[in-house]
Amino acid sequence: MPSNDLHAYLNASFDRHVAELTDLLKIPSVSTDPGHEADMRAAAGFVRDRLAGLGFSANVRETGGHPLVQAELVSGADRPTILIYGHYDVQPAEPLELWNTPPFEPKLTGAALIARGASDDKGQFYAHIMAVEALLATGGDPGVNIRFLIEGEEEIGSPNLDAYIREHLNELRADAVIISDGAMVAPGVPSLTYGLRGLAYVEVRVTTADRDLHSGAYGGAVPNAINVLARMIAALHDEDGRVTVPGFYDSVLELDDAERGLLARVPFDEAAFLGDVGVRAGMGEAGRSVLERISTRPTLDVNGIGGGFQGAGSKTVIANSAMAKISCRLVPDQDSGDITARLGAWLRELAPTGVKVDVTDLGAGEPAITSLDAPAVKAAAAALHEAWGKEPVFVRTGGSIPVVNTFQQLLGAPVVLLDMGLPSDNVHAPNEQFGLECYRRGIHAAALMIRRMGETD
Amino acid sequence: MPSNDLHAYLNASFDRHVAELTDLLKIPSVSTDPGHEADMRAAAGFVRDRLAGLGFSANVRETGGHPLVQAELVSGADRPTILIYGHYDVQPAEPLELWNTPPFEPKLTGAALIARGASDDKGQFYAHIMAVEALLATGGDPGVNIRFLIEGEEEIGSPNLDAYIREHLNELRADAVIISDGAMVAPGVPSLTYGLRGLAYVEVRVTTADRDLHSGAYGGAVPNAINVLARMIAALHDEDGRVTVPGFYDSVLELDDAERGLLARVPFDEAAFLGDVGVRAGMGEAGRSVLERISTRPTLDVNGIGGGFQGAGSKTVIANSAMAKISCRLVPDQDSGDITARLGAWLRELAPTGVKVDVTDLGAGEPAITSLDAPAVKAAAAALHEAWGKEPVFVRTGGSIPVVNTFQQLLGAPVVLLDMGLPSDNVHAPNEQFGLECYRRGIHAAALMIRRMGETD
Repeated sequence: MPSNDLHAYLNASFDRHVAELTDLLKIPSVSTDPGHEADMRAAAGFVRDRLAGLGFSANVRETGGHPLVQAELVSGADRPTILIYGHYDVQPAEPLELWNTPPFEPKLTGAALIARGASDDKGQFYAHIMAVEALLATGGDPGVNIRFLIEGEEEIGSPNLDAYIREHLNELRADAVIISDGAMVAPGVPSLTYGLRGLAYVEVRVTTADRDLHSGAYGGAVPNAINVLARMIAALHDEDGRVTVPGFYDSVLELDDAERGLLARVPFDEAAFLGDVGVRAGMGEAGRSVLERISTRPTLDVNGIGGGFQGAGSKTVIANSAMAKISCRLVPDQDSGDITARLGAWLRELAPTGVKVDVTDLGAGEPAITSLDAPAVKAAAAALHEAWGKEPVFVRTGGSIPVVNTFQQLLGAPVVLLDMGLPSDNVHAPNEQFGLECYRRGIHAAALMIRRMGETD
Repeated sequence: MPSNDLHAYLNASFDRHVAELTDLLKIPSVSTDPGHEADMRAAAGFVRDRLAGLGFSANVRETGGHPLVQAELVSGADRPTILIYGHYDVQPAEPLELWNTPPFEPKLTGAALIARGASDDKGQFYAHIMAVEALLATGGDPGVNIRFLIEGEEEIGSPNLDAYIREHLNELRADAVIISDGAMVAPGVPSLTYGLRGLAYVEVRVTTADRDLHSGAYGGAVPNAINVLARMIAALHDEDGRVTVPGFYDSVLELDDAERGLLARVPFDEAAFLGDVGVRAGMGEAGRSVLERISTRPTLDVNGIGGGFQGAGSKTVIANSAMAKISCRLVPDQDSGDITARLGAWLRELAPTGVKVDVTDLGAGEPAITSLDAPAVKAAAAALHEAWGKEPVFVRTGGSIPVVNTFQQLLGAPVVLLDMGLPSDNVHAPNEQFGLECYRRGIHAAALMIRRMGETD
């Protein structure tokens, strides 16, 4: 069936596609709030029913926490299989007073649908369901086995997902995993994310004495835990903004010419990126652009610090202990365990004699990168090109999505991040929205990608 | 009257002196607790009545806060006048469960009287009242005009004292001010404190962006407020432990040979001083002994720091602002206003371009030093020598007592710090105590000092 039949069907169906998403957005499926237990089940049921209506074998599955929806539509044992992951749970809507319209009464403007979860992630995963519907309505068998895994605990850290995947590997195996749960680089710029940073996160506590001391009686002669910690933190970067942890950069993949070329094609306005959040002067590794710094380079940031007297006014105390939370964003091929160990050892080495240093591992995640040669990536790129009428940009993003690594590790499949949202979607914030153009072209691109996967086999 | 009459009288009276102090210690005059309003008045009344009983013109005076006791015993218009300052208020006794005996049921052991306020400051100022009693009982006119100013708000920062002194200058003028509200260097070591450190205290806040940022999306390219603040703090000391604020040491008086000689006579065990509080290795200005560092040298300590996420677990945030409270202990002839201004300017200079720095003045106090040639100091030294049977040591201490500077400024009189307590008195802590030997010899020394002041005129 020619492509324009699909296009015509999507155009004719778009109002209904918006109406269906609107119904899903009305369900306040806030995963962190025990008061929304029934809403969680209602949202899962909604998704299950819609997939079942398309002919999927679809089930609501228990996880120990909120249930997830698993569904499958078989094309043939010799056909490729794709797994589409998403999540039906949403962030809390608070602070409610900052919303212009009630968060669970979706508001349709000329350009966007405004509701909690519109972009993150109901709109994005529902686009895939609408894409499958269109393929089935216009062409019959899409030529690939399609699996859906739509969980309900992404916003609370997916505590049960890893175990579920491990226990249901056979039902989830796929040749490619497709996730739409992020933002394009800019409006009108179709984007494929092929790399994510990982994370190594520790807490360090320095202890200098048995008790807090009077700054008059002891000041000047004893180590001050806060001053000591500040010096240690200061020593974690050199004058060029590079992290001083020995061996920190040993495993970092430098960009090759091909990746440099892709990076150069990304439309990125450094001044606007920094200015939008009130940063007057960027800061980072010397000799690297802002885009490199936030996507292809590892970092070290202190995420929290505390010690001594933080109340109003003054107290002349020398704290005997102080704490900092320190995390590194990692890039391929850094290993989070290796970096955590190196960072801990370096912190202990930086401490003065006699100062006790305790380093606690607060969690980690591996960086991820998907080969640009993977058939699914090529299919996605071609689909985006056709749906948007322009070539997509390929980006590595600075954040971490733990489930990406989980899928890569457990399923051994490439993960394609087909971002449909926009940076301005107010994700996790009041007045979350999903652009209608993003939804429309997202459905189109998702359908074209599936069709290409079916054709390319 | 020969000195041994006084001595004999004191020996014969000591049990009663202890009993009187015990009665005063039973009054829970906790100034910070509004529930002890009546106890404050009871304690003030107790002191007023005792002084009136000795023939003083004694009054309880209102201050706007807790009342104070002012009293005067006139010897003659041509006689020297001394002003004895102390405070009848005490610290809260909490945590009560750590007291071995109830804090307001004084417990007499063979060596000490245990109660809240025993050393700080009821025992020490009451020793002066008992000294005057003994002088009157054994010799009649002590030969000096004696004034008492016993306030009730020292433990809450003496908020009304300065105004009171300003408004009653004529009633308070004196040739010397005597304060006993501190500790001798060590047991059995009579000590005269002739110098105190001052204080310059600021809060600095750095702001790097309009809002907190996601460490994945922005990490590596924007200034991190905590990292920036840590680098600024680290830069406040050089590798020799000296403060880098430009001009910081310009006005510091170096010790002359005479002071060096006094310092050398102070029995001070560096290892014990540090080891007692669990400090394994001292830290401070290179080339200076621990005793110099804590008494004759200016310092800079961070007293508190806070920024970003300090809760349990991890949060991948880049805080847009972070705060530190920073104080300097000052020595003669540093000026707190000058140092506060220099520190603020230096902090602003240390900040990277584009980072906002706000410095708030949180209070200050001037360092103080009393000339060793002042007649009152010589009288106190001779009195201590006679009362203890050994020469006193002369010390400058690291803490600050704001009222010392107030008296020096407003009355223009030398302030003699006749410390009677011990470092082990558990001041501000559970099981506060006052050694009986300290009380006995404190009364004796106070009486001898007054007598010498009367003789030396």
